[in-house]
Amino acid sequence: MSSATAGAPIKCKAMVARGPKQPMVEEEITVMPPQAGEVRVKVIANALCHTDIYTLDGHDPEGLFPCILGHEAGCVVESVGEGVTSVKPGDHVIPCYTPQCCETTCVFCQSPKTNLCPKIRGTQGQGVMPDGTVRFKDKDGKDIFHFMGCSTMSEYTVIAEISCAKINPDAALEKVCLFGCGISTGLGAVWNTCKVETNSTVAVFGLGAVGLSVIQGAKIAGAIKIIAVDVNPKKFEIAKQLGATDCVNPKDIDKPIQQHIAGVMTQWGVDYSFDCTGKTEIMRAALECCHRGWGTSCIIGVAASGHEISTRPFQLVTGRVWKGTAFGGFKSRSQVPVLVERNLRGDLDIDHYITHRFKGVGETNAAVDALHSGDCLRAVVEY
Amino acid sequence: MSSATAGAPIKCKAMVARGPKQPMVEEEITVMPPQAGEVRVKVIANALCHTDIYTLDGHDPEGLFPCILGHEAGCVVESVGEGVTSVKPGDHVIPCYTPQCCETTCVFCQSPKTNLCPKIRGTQGQGVMPDGTVRFKDKDGKDIFHFMGCSTMSEYTVIAEISCAKINPDAALEKVCLFGCGISTGLGAVWNTCKVETNSTVAVFGLGAVGLSVIQGAKIAGAIKIIAVDVNPKKFEIAKQLGATDCVNPKDIDKPIQQHIAGVMTQWGVDYSFDCTGKTEIMRAALECCHRGWGTSCIIGVAASGHEISTRPFQLVTGRVWKGTAFGGFKSRSQVPVLVERNLRGDLDIDHYITHRFKGVGETNAAVDALHSGDCLRAVVEY
Repeated sequence: MSSATAGAPIKCKAMVARGPKQPMVEEEITVMPPQAGEVRVKVIANALCHTDIYTLDGHDPEGLFPCILGHEAGCVVESVGEGVTSVKPGDHVIPCYTPQCCETTCVFCQSPKTNLCPKIRGTQGQGVMPDGTVRFKDKDGKDIFHFMGCSTMSEYTVIAEISCAKINPDAALEKVCLFGCGISTGLGAVWNTCKVETNSTVAVFGLGAVGLSVIQGAKIAGAIKIIAVDVNPKKFEIAKQLGATDCVNPKDIDKPIQQHIAGVMTQWGVDYSFDCTGKTEIMRAALECCHRGWGTSCIIGVAASGHEISTRPFQLVTGRVWKGTAFGGFKSRSQVPVLVERNLRGDLDIDHYITHRFKGVGETNAAVDALHSGDCLRAVVEY
Repeated sequence: MSSATAGAPIKCKAMVARGPKQPMVEEEITVMPPQAGEVRVKVIANALCHTDIYTLDGHDPEGLFPCILGHEAGCVVESVGEGVTSVKPGDHVIPCYTPQCCETTCVFCQSPKTNLCPKIRGTQGQGVMPDGTVRFKDKDGKDIFHFMGCSTMSEYTVIAEISCAKINPDAALEKVCLFGCGISTGLGAVWNTCKVETNSTVAVFGLGAVGLSVIQGAKIAGAIKIIAVDVNPKKFEIAKQLGATDCVNPKDIDKPIQQHIAGVMTQWGVDYSFDCTGKTEIMRAALECCHRGWGTSCIIGVAASGHEISTRPFQLVTGRVWKGTAFGGFKSRSQVPVLVERNLRGDLDIDHYITHRFKGVGETNAAVDALHSGDCLRAVVEY
């Protein structure tokens, strides 16, 4: 057992999302001490992900307000609650929205097939900590909801111990914070969910940070043909730098993109395809450009509420496989640290994803604007 | 090389489907000698499959008439065309609608991932032999189309050498003919397409011969819970005999069947599910009753033309996998003989599928009536 000290309430600055479709507000909040099984962390840097914006823009019907968004961060442990043994004050951690309880009774944690530990799913979805209460108070003493179990758009936040991936302190937190969501998701879709083999052919739809990390992961996996698809040809240069062998803009094609890929760019389609757009019609195209007999398509993007995917069952009967991924299938606490080590060793560069940098939690709205601009991959805000 | 003799035209009886939605007609036809790469066989027994009926009833928009249906048969080679080396007159064979060319340039035959050799797909779909002509003439000398590369509702038929699975002559052809389609499809969906493991949980939708062979295959694979689903409870007895541990009639449930299976009958859903109904809404239920994190659903049934499958992408993002199978993933010429051997050894019984027997090709319409009756699994017509 650790000699945990729970500490006192901390006053700090945070960006509070007061409601959908309005800018977040920089406020002074109070972050309560961590309770049993919880960890309070000082956030060193937070990167913006489209899922934050999705909720902020009011597209998530289950979005709760007021809340503190943010879920892709690098942090230092400030204090730990009762019973916390896996981290101690001073440890460097990446908060993970997918926890890993590691309990012997958790069929998810015990299975090598999935990373979707459901231990705190219910309360996390309700914007509260596992005991049903919140750790954030505004200046009037009113509750502020948590978000995705992270809420890293605050100088301090409280997360569950089982959401806390302890990493090598040699890593720069303002960089490896990216492993908290998008980059891990893209890499893991290739390595874990699809297990892309050497000499495979791959198509990637959508060249944001996730799509580009799919390309990077496919290149590392030894794919020999990587087709990058986007309606914005400005993305093609970095796609090629990361390993894309072919780039195509569907707007330049006079037939459905799936027919162009399976028929013109390849004979039978690609071995693996990845949707990183969140658009259900693109998810269909991604499936249908797959190789007859074995082509596998992976959905990574989050679709708008109520939208459904569809295809002819013949597509599956003739051998195509449709799957999806969450956090790239990485078991968070055990595998995120491995990604960080790999980055430290120099064989998994992620610098190129950080296109915009800001200083101070109050600059988060400027980072949101940058992400909206279209030429931003990741905007990192150092606190 | 064989000393092949091509022989002369043969006059024999056959059931000719003159048009959709009308009974087949017993006619005397002429079966021309096999050409290069072809084999003429004497059909000993033919079992009826719903795909024959699907075409006969006019549901297949690509159905061609007049044609000779039938594709689940046991045969003896009568003569072989030029260049045929893998079978000789007297050999026992099962015609397979999925060929296996085994050529080094065939990416499908060379891949362990699929059985979908496309070598003669084009001509087979057009109702002709690989050279573009037919081997059947009616009494007026007019062409009759082939069907699925088999056309076994005739006392003699001609098939491509690459569609010809040579089996142990000790096997009873009026029994092992069943390995030509449905039973192999169900077993292979479990063993090849899904690779069901020991201690898995399984749900099977639709308890015809294919669904029952899924149950049999799952039992052999070591599944510990096998849920059999059908709206006809008369099917439950044989389902239990073959290995079903639970039977459920969706009509007896007050919620969607997927919620009953994933929530009441199991906590999180089943590891594997199989649709053997051909109904797209059941395909969706089969996917959605799968275990969060890894549950895999396999589409076996053939859907009505134009019908599409759909679901929320969240189902896949949270770990479910949607796939399909054709002929159970068995590579026809190399693997059907293995199924026959297994049956001969006594560890793969199939007698229980044959619920109706008829004698003489002219009794085929009576067999069709039996199949329509609802309590028929397989009707075998011995010629």
